[in-house]
Amino acid sequence: MNITLAQQNYHIGNFEANTNKIIEAIREAKKSGADLIVFSELAVCGYPPRDFLEFNDFIEQSLSSIEKIKAETDTIGVIVGAPSRNPKPEGKDLFNSAYFLFENEIKGIAHKTLLPTYDIFDEYRYFEPANEWNILTFKGKKFAITICEDIWNIADNPLYRICPMNELMKQQPDIMINVSASPYDYLHGDNRKQIIARNVGAYNLPMIYCNTIGSQTEIVFDGGSLVMNKEQEIVVELPYFSEGMKEVVWNEDGSFEKGNNVYKITGNKEEIPIAFMPQKEIEKVHAALILGIRDYFSKMNFTNAIVASSGGIDSAVVLALACEALGAENVRALLLPSQFSSDHSVNDAIQLSQNLNNQYDIIPIGKVFDSYNQSLKEVFDGLPFNVAEENLQSRIRGAMVMALSNKFGSILLNTSNKSELATGYGTLYGDMAGGLGVLGDCYKMQVYAIASFINRNQEIIPINIITKAPSAELRPDQKDSDSLPEYNILDPILYQYIERRQGPKEIISHGFDHSLVHRILKLVNTNEYKRNQFCPIIRISPKAFGVGRRMPIVGKYLG
Amino acid sequence: MNITLAQQNYHIGNFEANTNKIIEAIREAKKSGADLIVFSELAVCGYPPRDFLEFNDFIEQSLSSIEKIKAETDTIGVIVGAPSRNPKPEGKDLFNSAYFLFENEIKGIAHKTLLPTYDIFDEYRYFEPANEWNILTFKGKKFAITICEDIWNIADNPLYRICPMNELMKQQPDIMINVSASPYDYLHGDNRKQIIARNVGAYNLPMIYCNTIGSQTEIVFDGGSLVMNKEQEIVVELPYFSEGMKEVVWNEDGSFEKGNNVYKITGNKEEIPIAFMPQKEIEKVHAALILGIRDYFSKMNFTNAIVASSGGIDSAVVLALACEALGAENVRALLLPSQFSSDHSVNDAIQLSQNLNNQYDIIPIGKVFDSYNQSLKEVFDGLPFNVAEENLQSRIRGAMVMALSNKFGSILLNTSNKSELATGYGTLYGDMAGGLGVLGDCYKMQVYAIASFINRNQEIIPINIITKAPSAELRPDQKDSDSLPEYNILDPILYQYIERRQGPKEIISHGFDHSLVHRILKLVNTNEYKRNQFCPIIRISPKAFGVGRRMPIVGKYLG
Repeated sequence: MNITLAQQNYHIGNFEANTNKIIEAIREAKKSGADLIVFSELAVCGYPPRDFLEFNDFIEQSLSSIEKIKAETDTIGVIVGAPSRNPKPEGKDLFNSAYFLFENEIKGIAHKTLLPTYDIFDEYRYFEPANEWNILTFKGKKFAITICEDIWNIADNPLYRICPMNELMKQQPDIMINVSASPYDYLHGDNRKQIIARNVGAYNLPMIYCNTIGSQTEIVFDGGSLVMNKEQEIVVELPYFSEGMKEVVWNEDGSFEKGNNVYKITGNKEEIPIAFMPQKEIEKVHAALILGIRDYFSKMNFTNAIVASSGGIDSAVVLALACEALGAENVRALLLPSQFSSDHSVNDAIQLSQNLNNQYDIIPIGKVFDSYNQSLKEVFDGLPFNVAEENLQSRIRGAMVMALSNKFGSILLNTSNKSELATGYGTLYGDMAGGLGVLGDCYKMQVYAIASFINRNQEIIPINIITKAPSAELRPDQKDSDSLPEYNILDPILYQYIERRQGPKEIISHGFDHSLVHRILKLVNTNEYKRNQFCPIIRISPKAFGVGRRMPIVGKYLG
Repeated sequence: MNITLAQQNYHIGNFEANTNKIIEAIREAKKSGADLIVFSELAVCGYPPRDFLEFNDFIEQSLSSIEKIKAETDTIGVIVGAPSRNPKPEGKDLFNSAYFLFENEIKGIAHKTLLPTYDIFDEYRYFEPANEWNILTFKGKKFAITICEDIWNIADNPLYRICPMNELMKQQPDIMINVSASPYDYLHGDNRKQIIARNVGAYNLPMIYCNTIGSQTEIVFDGGSLVMNKEQEIVVELPYFSEGMKEVVWNEDGSFEKGNNVYKITGNKEEIPIAFMPQKEIEKVHAALILGIRDYFSKMNFTNAIVASSGGIDSAVVLALACEALGAENVRALLLPSQFSSDHSVNDAIQLSQNLNNQYDIIPIGKVFDSYNQSLKEVFDGLPFNVAEENLQSRIRGAMVMALSNKFGSILLNTSNKSELATGYGTLYGDMAGGLGVLGDCYKMQVYAIASFINRNQEIIPINIITKAPSAELRPDQKDSDSLPEYNILDPILYQYIERRQGPKEIISHGFDHSLVHRILKLVNTNEYKRNQFCPIIRISPKAFGVGRRMPIVGKYLG
């Protein structure tokens, strides 16, 4: 039997584009003689559709798309993800389903049992879990179809009371097929292969695993669809961070024709040192960020970006990423020096744009700052320069860059990093402005690593930008280290708290200073209100700020 | 048996304050001879604790609080909500529980079965549903204890497959006790009493219903705890929007001593006309907004507010509400006229602050606007005045009012209404700035109704503010109606789409213009990115923007 894996990039709610893409792949697979083609989870409507699912009209459009796809299945079996209606009065109205289409009919539907409802996932908000399980038969073979999370309940401390593969095994399937929408994070990639291998081992069945790719606002799906044989060898693997289609031959005896790069998953994953991530992983983070920018623009129908270029490392990295993702001709930089900006800041920023070959403009903010001070003079009544004036400079920059954004239709890319966002080291409506947070899930130490990666072949980011001490330059001789500990101490504390959800006692037990830990955790918790107004962040970690981390604003815990 | 209902306002994560408050109530109840005292859902940690629940340290603190409370229960039974650990390896780690404490022991724990995971609720994110049910015996009586949502599965189209009261009835309880954290919205209040009556009728048992009050960032809990006897009479009812404690005597024969205002719930609730809400309901909306402001400030440890006062109705209503919630002496207004501001705008805003007796300052923005234009001249290269300059004025105002906020520690109250937020009629980092969205869940027509209510006894808001045509005043002779339909047409369309989740066909079928409906729905969906950066909104409707409405930003549905 010839089985094709179709790893595609969908646009949430864009039924026309998604359906056409699916139908094109079906036609191509038919031409090359495939018996069966497999698509990913909720392919028809895109993942995650969120509260669009609450609109009856949205479900109707999805069901119409299934009809259109069905009409293409005269001679080929198609497994494709889409919502289906729960016919029973009890429970939620929808299932998260995989449709099995063949001979222009719906031959069967498998529903997802385990509904991830943690981090960025909200599936129980919409879907009823499956409560009956049936294998599907096609050309004499029995298929156990599961959806994403369904195969992840295989640990010693399972998150769910039920294991759908255990139920399906009662009907003696010949093969497992899992349709997924499994996102990238820097701890997740290898994990996924190990979970697949564990299922293959536990049930002694091969698995066809089809994932989606593409970025959906903040969530980056990395693909890596694969086929694993009973021997736990990966016989076919699709690319990461790009679309792809591959056919695999499943022999009568249950074996697979092997591709060129067959390999086996072994051992457990090593802990990644957060502050000193290996280059191999930084390469993936880089790919995720590029895809995150590119898909945000293409799916929002935007072309041009603008970056406030300060001469610091964060804006330099964002500018370089934007030029790679969108083309330097579509990216413009705006330099907004103040009286507190050092000469090297402006020169470094100019050099950067010259290296990248992107348009840049320089608008000093001094005169506008003076006019604000003049207007505020009476109300401020001789009170000394403080955070009000510091933030004001940042907000003048925000208003300037937004003026260009509005005038020229360029989308402002935000440059705040995760260390800053965590500690509240940023100005709302100032440097926190923007449509997309490119580095909001990268700790400062990771930003340095990405900068080095960008410079791997040539000096794109001027070396002075990488080596100088970080500064917001909002008052004379200001340095980040005036307010925050060094990033190689700060970042690991933040990582323990944010990604690992460790409390103060646990973090201190790793050897960090008692009062420093309490100070940092308090900063994180009392700045929730700022992050709450921040733009979407491209997610690369297992716990990004934004939809996946939901904290009370009015609360008093470690604050 | 004497049973005390304790309806209290908790602070999320503030274990010390919450525990002290609970213990004080226990001591008071003991003094007045109560046998049993009932507190609300997750009282110990506050509701909703959100991702704080993922911190082991947070759960430890909650369990310590239970120990402290337990030490007070030598002679009184206490039912109090708090998380408990799931001892089994399968399933989520926590239950949402009601502890039954007596004689300094934990006599029993009831777990919540039905975990609301819709709108603002995320309970399945954290909790394992109960899968066994037991009544608790106290002084010879059998108590069926349920938690909030557990009693709501009584409709014809139930959201859950299981009904915990059906399970508990197998053990023949004498009484139902429901501990809740049930929020206010203008459709919810009467609904709740009807659900309680339906349970009382279905199981032929009285119910003790204990709710919480207080605002938690965006969610306002309105209290209204009550005791309903078997005859479906409300024999005791606690206040709305304030704390309270009441004792009720439950006789041996199952009847209750009746209070002064016994009444029975009858009939179904009438549909509330959204654009012309009755004064009785506006009074509650008003109370919810006042509580929303007051609790935000007191729980965040803020005292002073600032409002950008434009002479329009939205800022007038916010200023009046703020003065009532916080005291006029703690509220300051900032008038920021431009060359496009009409004289009456400034005069009306001055009159308003004189009526309210709050401090106000006037800072014209013309000179700062000129200095921006001067600085941008070269880059803008003769391009005509457009949305860039309009937004710039709004952002200058945002920066000015934030400068005062930073200088004087006053929190900026945002004045955007729901009609504006829905259609994207506002400027990010300009009039969309602020710490709390006071009117973000009120449609413009409702803002007018609130204004009338504020003026019910005297003219606080100058009548000219109420009668003049709404305008953003960002270009000569601008009116809202240049860009949007009249609010008495816009608001009902928005209500059908947002609150009722109706698609374009359904809305058009109510008699609205086809192209107008499509235009409005497109505006709503394409402005998701703006709302995503908006501050928390005090929720008064069944579907507010913010945590309870989760839409893809990168999506293409009706957009």
